[in-house]
Amino acid sequence: MRECIVYKPIGVIRSGHTKPEETPIQPVYSEGYQGRAEVFPEFAAGLRDLEGFSHIYLVYHMHRADRPRLAVKPFLQDVERGIVATRAPCRPNPIGLSVVRLVCREGNVLHLDAVDVLDGTPLLDIKPYTARFDRIEGTRNGWQDEVDEETARLRGRRGK
Amino acid sequence: MRECIVYKPIGVIRSGHTKPEETPIQPVYSEGYQGRAEVFPEFAAGLRDLEGFSHIYLVYHMHRADRPRLAVKPFLQDVERGIVATRAPCRPNPIGLSVVRLVCREGNVLHLDAVDVLDGTPLLDIKPYTARFDRIEGTRNGWQDEVDEETARLRGRRGK
Repeated sequence: MRECIVYKPIGVIRSGHTKPEETPIQPVYSEGYQGRAEVFPEFAAGLRDLEGFSHIYLVYHMHRADRPRLAVKPFLQDVERGIVATRAPCRPNPIGLSVVRLVCREGNVLHLDAVDVLDGTPLLDIKPYTARFDRIEGTRNGWQDEVDEETARLRGRRGK
Repeated sequence: MRECIVYKPIGVIRSGHTKPEETPIQPVYSEGYQGRAEVFPEFAAGLRDLEGFSHIYLVYHMHRADRPRLAVKPFLQDVERGIVATRAPCRPNPIGLSVVRLVCREGNVLHLDAVDVLDGTPLLDIKPYTARFDRIEGTRNGWQDEVDEETARLRGRRGK
């Protein structure tokens, strides 16, 4: 139950983001930042039919995350929170999750918009985002509901 | 770039699901199936503030997934699709993702509803589900849009 789990990247994420501190914190604050998921050729056949989806989940290894901490101040608020109540990268397992827009597929390359991922990030999985499974109505959003939209946008885009 | 990535579970998921073939395929088809995320005590401090959120992502290792395949027939449709255009478990990296309802937190134990995860599944990460980041409107949903709601529900619940 406490055994190590080993994954191998299925590709790499390419973007214009090279500095963590200048990278938007979520796709919703990354409008206009294009990028690519370059899937290794041996997995290309697994991408078939993905182009029917307008949005996809990228699941990735945040290779440049700071060492794990159990309490952090999230990007959107200056109040310390438990790490798993935030989306901060310095998690026990630095697994990243982003819902990005799939512009088109060219063979084993996915062209993406609204990319909030650092260039060179190892890609672990891709999943289709579907309204049926993933769009949840009427949620309570914890401390996030304390943050107004304007503040969230300014902080989320890193001031840009 | 092709280096192995090693994670350690932060806990274990408990549920009444012991047979993969009788386990609902997504939380949306798991209404009434309760479960728990038992987080190991050394990570308990990282759960603080999570109880403010009505829904959370569980990120987990699908330890009983079949060997990876690049083409599969998804649970909801008898047409072969590329693996990453589906949510089937037999992925190159069998990372599971479920948006479940957080009923309450009791120390290091999260009580959950709408659980579609097999009992004993290693937990890798938890993230808060937030309307701001995760509820995407107006998506195109590829082959899933071909499946009517009644069929999806029947198949998704495994006929129950």
